[in-house]
Amino acid sequence: MDRHLLSAMRRAGVDAWLVVTREGTRDPVSFDVAADDVVGRAICLFVDKGDHLEKVAIVASFDTEPFEKSGIYLRVTPYGKEGAGPALKNELDTLTPKAIAVDQSKEEPLADGLTAGNLQWLREAIGPEYSRRLMSAEGLLISFRSRKTAAEIAKMRDAVKKTNQILTEALSPDVIKPGKTTEKDVADFIRKRRREMGLGPSWEEDQDPNVMAGLARGHSGATDALIVPGAVVRIDAGVDDEGYKTDLQRMAYVLRPGETAPPLEVQKAFDTVKAANRAAASALKPGVKGVDVDGAGRRVVTGAGYPEYMHATGHPIGFFTHDLGPGLAPDWPDRYGKSGTYVVEKDQTFAIEPSLETELPWMLGGATGFGLEEDYVVTETGAEPLGPLQESLILIPSAP
Amino acid sequence: MDRHLLSAMRRAGVDAWLVVTREGTRDPVSFDVAADDVVGRAICLFVDKGDHLEKVAIVASFDTEPFEKSGIYLRVTPYGKEGAGPALKNELDTLTPKAIAVDQSKEEPLADGLTAGNLQWLREAIGPEYSRRLMSAEGLLISFRSRKTAAEIAKMRDAVKKTNQILTEALSPDVIKPGKTTEKDVADFIRKRRREMGLGPSWEEDQDPNVMAGLARGHSGATDALIVPGAVVRIDAGVDDEGYKTDLQRMAYVLRPGETAPPLEVQKAFDTVKAANRAAASALKPGVKGVDVDGAGRRVVTGAGYPEYMHATGHPIGFFTHDLGPGLAPDWPDRYGKSGTYVVEKDQTFAIEPSLETELPWMLGGATGFGLEEDYVVTETGAEPLGPLQESLILIPSAP
Repeated sequence: MDRHLLSAMRRAGVDAWLVVTREGTRDPVSFDVAADDVVGRAICLFVDKGDHLEKVAIVASFDTEPFEKSGIYLRVTPYGKEGAGPALKNELDTLTPKAIAVDQSKEEPLADGLTAGNLQWLREAIGPEYSRRLMSAEGLLISFRSRKTAAEIAKMRDAVKKTNQILTEALSPDVIKPGKTTEKDVADFIRKRRREMGLGPSWEEDQDPNVMAGLARGHSGATDALIVPGAVVRIDAGVDDEGYKTDLQRMAYVLRPGETAPPLEVQKAFDTVKAANRAAASALKPGVKGVDVDGAGRRVVTGAGYPEYMHATGHPIGFFTHDLGPGLAPDWPDRYGKSGTYVVEKDQTFAIEPSLETELPWMLGGATGFGLEEDYVVTETGAEPLGPLQESLILIPSAP
Repeated sequence: MDRHLLSAMRRAGVDAWLVVTREGTRDPVSFDVAADDVVGRAICLFVDKGDHLEKVAIVASFDTEPFEKSGIYLRVTPYGKEGAGPALKNELDTLTPKAIAVDQSKEEPLADGLTAGNLQWLREAIGPEYSRRLMSAEGLLISFRSRKTAAEIAKMRDAVKKTNQILTEALSPDVIKPGKTTEKDVADFIRKRRREMGLGPSWEEDQDPNVMAGLARGHSGATDALIVPGAVVRIDAGVDDEGYKTDLQRMAYVLRPGETAPPLEVQKAFDTVKAANRAAASALKPGVKGVDVDGAGRRVVTGAGYPEYMHATGHPIGFFTHDLGPGLAPDWPDRYGKSGTYVVEKDQTFAIEPSLETELPWMLGGATGFGLEEDYVVTETGAEPLGPLQESLILIPSAP
C-alpha cells in the first residue's frame, strides 16, 4: 500500500490523506483503509514524512480489531467517551501536514465519501487553521485506485472470461425458446449460472442482469415479457469474482419464420455499435484524455446516421462496476464534470459501451436499443480486451 | 407518505426537504424516495405548499423509470447534458421554499446522506440566496423514519420471533457438542437456518452472527475456536425479514464435568445483564429521553459492581439495524452527540443491549463478555417486547 499511496499523494501534491467515516454512510474507499466494518466514527490518517508514510487510525474502542488485524497502521488509537477529536488534533499537531486531502468531490462519487456532517464535525475537531489545509482527494484517489497490478489484471481477465461464458450460454437456443421464454427466465438462468460458478452480481442483483427483448428501456431489471421472433435481445450483465467486477453487453436476434439472417436494419445497428466499440478501444492508450476516447466511439454512431447516445462511452471498472478513474466521457460538465479530462494511464481497466436506438418497422411504439460492451486494459501502447469479444450478432432460430 | 412526511416537516419547522444523491455514495434514505437504484445525480424535492405536498424528482434521463414507477412524484424531470442544476433552480424559483432541510448531521449517520461534494454542487447550483436557507434534516428524518405503522410493527414481531427461534435452536446440545463444535460451526448453523427460512442477515453476513465462546471481543465474526466446557457462549445475531431488521443477543453456559448449574460468577453476571435489560425496558415510554433509558440499564450494571459498559444501552431498529431515532445513549457528546436527548415516541422500536465484562477465574488472559439484547416497541404507556425474552441462562451439558 505504502508505495502506491505515497506516489499517488506526491503526484496529487498533498502530504496527507484523511478519511472520516462511520456506519450508515461508509466511504466507498473504506475497504482500502480497513474501515468497511466500523460502527463508530473512524479516522484514518496517512502522512508523507519523506522517509516513510505515517499511518494512524483513531477508532471507537469497540472497533479496533479490524484496524489492528489489517496490518496497515503503525498506530491504532481507541477512543471512548471523549470522541475521536482530541486524538486527531494531537496527531495533526505532531505530524504537521501542510495539505490534507479529504474525500470530497463534485465530479467523482467514489472520491466523495466524506459526508457533509462528517466534514462539519472534522472542521470543528481540528479547528480553523487545519481546516484551511483541507483539499479534495479526487486526484489522489483516481491515481491510487485506478491503476491495477499484474495480479489484479489477471483476476480481471479471469472474471471477464467467466462473464462472457455465462452470457454466451444464455443467448443460445438451449435457453431461449422464442414465444415461451421470458426476459426474466434468461435473467434467472444467468443468476443461477453465476451462483454455480461461485460469482456474485456486479451491481444490484435485481438489475444485473438486465435483459431487454423489446423496446429500449432505461436502467431496470428483466420483465415478464416473452422473447418473440423478430426481437432484438440485449443483455447487460456482470459478475463479482472475489471483489473484481465485470460489465459486458451481448446482443442476439431472434429469427422470424423463414429468416436465415437478420434484417438489414438490425445488422446495420449491430455493426455500428460494434464499430463504435472498437473505435473507442483503438483510441484508448496512455496519455490520451477520456473525452477523446469517448469521441472516437460517439462519432461512429452519429456518423452512421443514428442519434447521439446520451451517456458516456465508457467507465473505469475493477473494484467497483463504475470505478474511480478517468471517465471515457463527453465534455458535458454538468453531467460528467471533469471526468473526461483526466489522462488515461497504463494498467487502468475500462468498460466501453457505446449504444444506439433505432426504430425497427415491426417493433411498434418506440425505438429498440443496441449496445455492445467490452472490458479492456490499457497497455504500454494501446488497449487489450480482457476477454473474448463479441464479433457477430448471435442468431436464435424462431422454433425447432 | 404525504401525511407522514408533512407532519414530520411541520414538527421540524421546515417547508422543504431536499435529497441529493447518486451511485457510489447513496443516501441511506434513498429507498424512501425511490432513489436506491440511481446512477446519475438525483434530486428529490418535497415542498409543503399548505394544501398539498409538492413532490418533484430531477434525474438523469436514463434514471427516470424507478422514479416514475414509484408513484411518489407529481413530476419527474429528466435532465441530459445540462445537468440537474437548471431544473432545480427553476423549481425553487417556482415553489419558493423558506427553510430547506438537507441530509446533513454530525450526530446521526442515517441523517447524513448528503456528501460533501454533493453539498458543494448544490450550493453552486442554487446560488447563495437559497444556500442560506439550507438546514439539517436531522429532526425531520428522526420523526419521519422512526415511528412504525401497525403493519410494520406486526412485521417486526414476526421477524423477532423467527430470530429467537433460530438462536434457541443454535444454543442447544443438538448443535453444540463441547470440545468438537467451533464458534464458526454455530455461526454457520445460524446462517443456514436463516437461509432456509428465507431470511437475510441483519448486518454484514461475516459478522452476523457473531458467536463468542471465550474472552470478550469487539465487533468481529465467529472464529475457529472450539467451544469447551466452562465457556460462556454469547451470540449476537439478527435477521433481515423482507427489509425488517432484528438484533438479539442470547447467552449460554457449557457445564463442566460434574456441574449441574453454572458457577456463581456466571449466574450473577447473567442475572445482572438481564436485570439491566429489563430496567431499561421499564424506563422506555413516550416522553422520556433516551439518556434516561440508558441510565436505567447502566446503573444496574455499575450498581452490581461491574465496570461501566462503553457503549449505548440501546438503539432504534427497524429498516436498519441501527436505525434513525432517539439513541438510548449516555450523555457522551463527542461519541453520541445529541442522540440521547431526543424524546421517545409511541410506535418506535428499539434494541436494548446492556453488557458487562468480568474475569472468570478459569478463563485465562482477559475478561469474558456478557450481553442480553431484546427488541421492544413503545406503546401508549410503556414498552412491549417484540418477541419471547430470554429469561434464564441456557445450559449445555459438557458431554453426552
